[in-house]
Amino acid sequence: MMREPAQQTASGASAPSGTFGTRILELADRLATHSEMTGGLTCTYLSAAHRAVAKELQGWMQLAGLDTTIDALGNVAGRYRSATPGAKALIVGSHYDTVANAGRYDGRLGILTALVVAEQLQRSGQALPFHLDVVAFAEEEGVRFSAPYLGSSAVAGRFDKALLQRRDTGGISLADALQDFGSRPEDIAALARQPRDLVGYLEVHIEQGPVLLNSNRPAGIVTAIVGGARHRVIVHGHAGHAGTVPMALRQDAAAAAAEIVLALERRCNAEPGLVGTVGKLAVPGGAINVIPARCELTFDIRAADDAVRDAAERDLRAEIAQIALRRGVAVDVDELSRSPAIACAVGLQALMAQALQDAGVKPFYLASGAGHDAVMFAGVTDIGMLFVRCGNGGISHHPSETVTAEDADLGARVLLDVILSLA
Amino acid sequence: MMREPAQQTASGASAPSGTFGTRILELADRLATHSEMTGGLTCTYLSAAHRAVAKELQGWMQLAGLDTTIDALGNVAGRYRSATPGAKALIVGSHYDTVANAGRYDGRLGILTALVVAEQLQRSGQALPFHLDVVAFAEEEGVRFSAPYLGSSAVAGRFDKALLQRRDTGGISLADALQDFGSRPEDIAALARQPRDLVGYLEVHIEQGPVLLNSNRPAGIVTAIVGGARHRVIVHGHAGHAGTVPMALRQDAAAAAAEIVLALERRCNAEPGLVGTVGKLAVPGGAINVIPARCELTFDIRAADDAVRDAAERDLRAEIAQIALRRGVAVDVDELSRSPAIACAVGLQALMAQALQDAGVKPFYLASGAGHDAVMFAGVTDIGMLFVRCGNGGISHHPSETVTAEDADLGARVLLDVILSLA
Repeated sequence: MMREPAQQTASGASAPSGTFGTRILELADRLATHSEMTGGLTCTYLSAAHRAVAKELQGWMQLAGLDTTIDALGNVAGRYRSATPGAKALIVGSHYDTVANAGRYDGRLGILTALVVAEQLQRSGQALPFHLDVVAFAEEEGVRFSAPYLGSSAVAGRFDKALLQRRDTGGISLADALQDFGSRPEDIAALARQPRDLVGYLEVHIEQGPVLLNSNRPAGIVTAIVGGARHRVIVHGHAGHAGTVPMALRQDAAAAAAEIVLALERRCNAEPGLVGTVGKLAVPGGAINVIPARCELTFDIRAADDAVRDAAERDLRAEIAQIALRRGVAVDVDELSRSPAIACAVGLQALMAQALQDAGVKPFYLASGAGHDAVMFAGVTDIGMLFVRCGNGGISHHPSETVTAEDADLGARVLLDVILSLA
Repeated sequence: MMREPAQQTASGASAPSGTFGTRILELADRLATHSEMTGGLTCTYLSAAHRAVAKELQGWMQLAGLDTTIDALGNVAGRYRSATPGAKALIVGSHYDTVANAGRYDGRLGILTALVVAEQLQRSGQALPFHLDVVAFAEEEGVRFSAPYLGSSAVAGRFDKALLQRRDTGGISLADALQDFGSRPEDIAALARQPRDLVGYLEVHIEQGPVLLNSNRPAGIVTAIVGGARHRVIVHGHAGHAGTVPMALRQDAAAAAAEIVLALERRCNAEPGLVGTVGKLAVPGGAINVIPARCELTFDIRAADDAVRDAAERDLRAEIAQIALRRGVAVDVDELSRSPAIACAVGLQALMAQALQDAGVKPFYLASGAGHDAVMFAGVTDIGMLFVRCGNGGISHHPSETVTAEDADLGARVLLDVILSLA
């Protein structure tokens, strides 16, 4: 909102300011017409709507002069080919599946940004020393088979074959769904890209949060994708009559749980970049006149630095032990899952910072609190991510998700600049 | 446990120490053989088991020489008749229905204590200037028709006729159940006792809590039956992604609810005799990775002094308003029910204190946190209640509810002494 009009980059591949953004939003609107629901957008992996989106994307890539494929998992790829012998590839992508009743920019913004940049490269006849692979990953949300990153995991060479036997809520296995799609599971392994063949992986994504919006910035450079730990917590207290047991003699599971909720919040408040959430909280079978004997809750703790998150978990467990001791309750803490933080390549961050500066925008850095396809490429190649401001309070996974044409335009110009810088 | 061997009272009506208690426990065991379940005690209003208990009680009253009736609601009454012309009546009673899978002393202890005292009066030929009415109330728990105090409300003249149309879970109305029992609803009004005909109402009851047990006292004088207020509380926050929304930008309904839970606890901790319970607590449809948009909870606040409870409610509402303001959430607080505290007669408390002292037990006073049949007689006649220690951590409404023969014996001796003092 407060940034200056963008300056043109020095490169001949630049487009007039604003044209990228308008086109990205138009294409996103067009993709959103393919939906499983009326009056909203739902595009689940390998549904009719999903296949229609794939065809649409492939068509646009072809019009842009890219060499296209739809691979064994449904990923749509378009190569802007390099003439350099033995060229490596730079992958620029994101996903086109959606959650139920979704917004139209989550994932798709990144695909369409890459597409309009490839269109511009084609228009200007810009030669690159590497292939530019625009990839629309078929499945990232994990909605249909409760397994995220199906598309990007295959391209990154870490597809889990056991998932082929997993069934959706209709009882259809992933293997069956792929067969119906016309692909052969045995072709998945060949999708894996080798580290030696890659220049890097870039992804533009809406932030899906309010940080850029609240700090009045159109875009931000992602420093890391946070690691997470999830736990289930059960507090075992002692039931009692709400009238006959004096306060001092209670072992109230809900009150102990309330302390734990606030302990997590306090600990995470104390450290920037650390977030902790109690998403589930319940007294099972609670009655208005009975002191709760049991309370169940969950933790979701994330940080861009695993050491920061580990320290928070340690402190929290110690505080839970104190709460339990003081209140005479027992607390079980069971880990449900754990994933490490993923660092974005410092070199790519620096190129993005330069591109933002060239566009008259002061570079701003933030961690990604959500996972993205980029996670799959950690350890495979360098990762770079750019977040574009999410309007409307930062809401995502919701029909009211918005991006402005101006911000989308900036994202495309930064991506183009970074690609040209890498060249 | 620490009290001295009981002294005999001056009255000729005393029995050898210990015989009351043993008999009370034997009779309670006998009553517990009538149950709707195997391996436990359930005795719901007007069930076959319930009718069998009524017959059993009536038989014992008859053997004790009392004039017995089973009235239109199923209350079993036995009068130890006074020869004094125009004598008033002292009612001594409690209830014989139970909750599901109940203990065997809740309610029945009071009936059997009154019975053994009447037996002793009969044995010793003790004349009284008032009729002693031993009353076993048919229904106090409210299990079958979700309406407590059916039996005692009729005797106290406050039976709600609208309840006759209320149906149990099997679709049978109270009117139908009474007809099947052989009584006529039009006879209920005549059960009402007039204030001018009553000396008072006495009830011995197990404490159903841990206060006497924890303070090592066999019995306690009830000062009041607490009043209560129940509220439903809904916290409206703002949903968000557990990873992408920084702590400072959250409007977390569960964290706000946790503060409210602890605010209630802290306020009630600060004042003896005040108790507050959050029995229900839930994030509806909560997900591990979503910041809760909504959290629902309930309050149950009780005190022996309505002004104390009102002040606590005021303070709590003020604190909730602060929490809501600070966190940017909205909080609805809706009153579900409210009942005033019931004071026990100071004169009857004094007689109990004297009786306890005569038995070598230092008088101890406490409020009743639960409702009892005595509540129905508030405003009708003087109320006196004696609590007998509840073993096993103070648990009640549960098969592991216990009373010792020694404590039951003390309860009977105190009741006998009070009756003789009133004479």
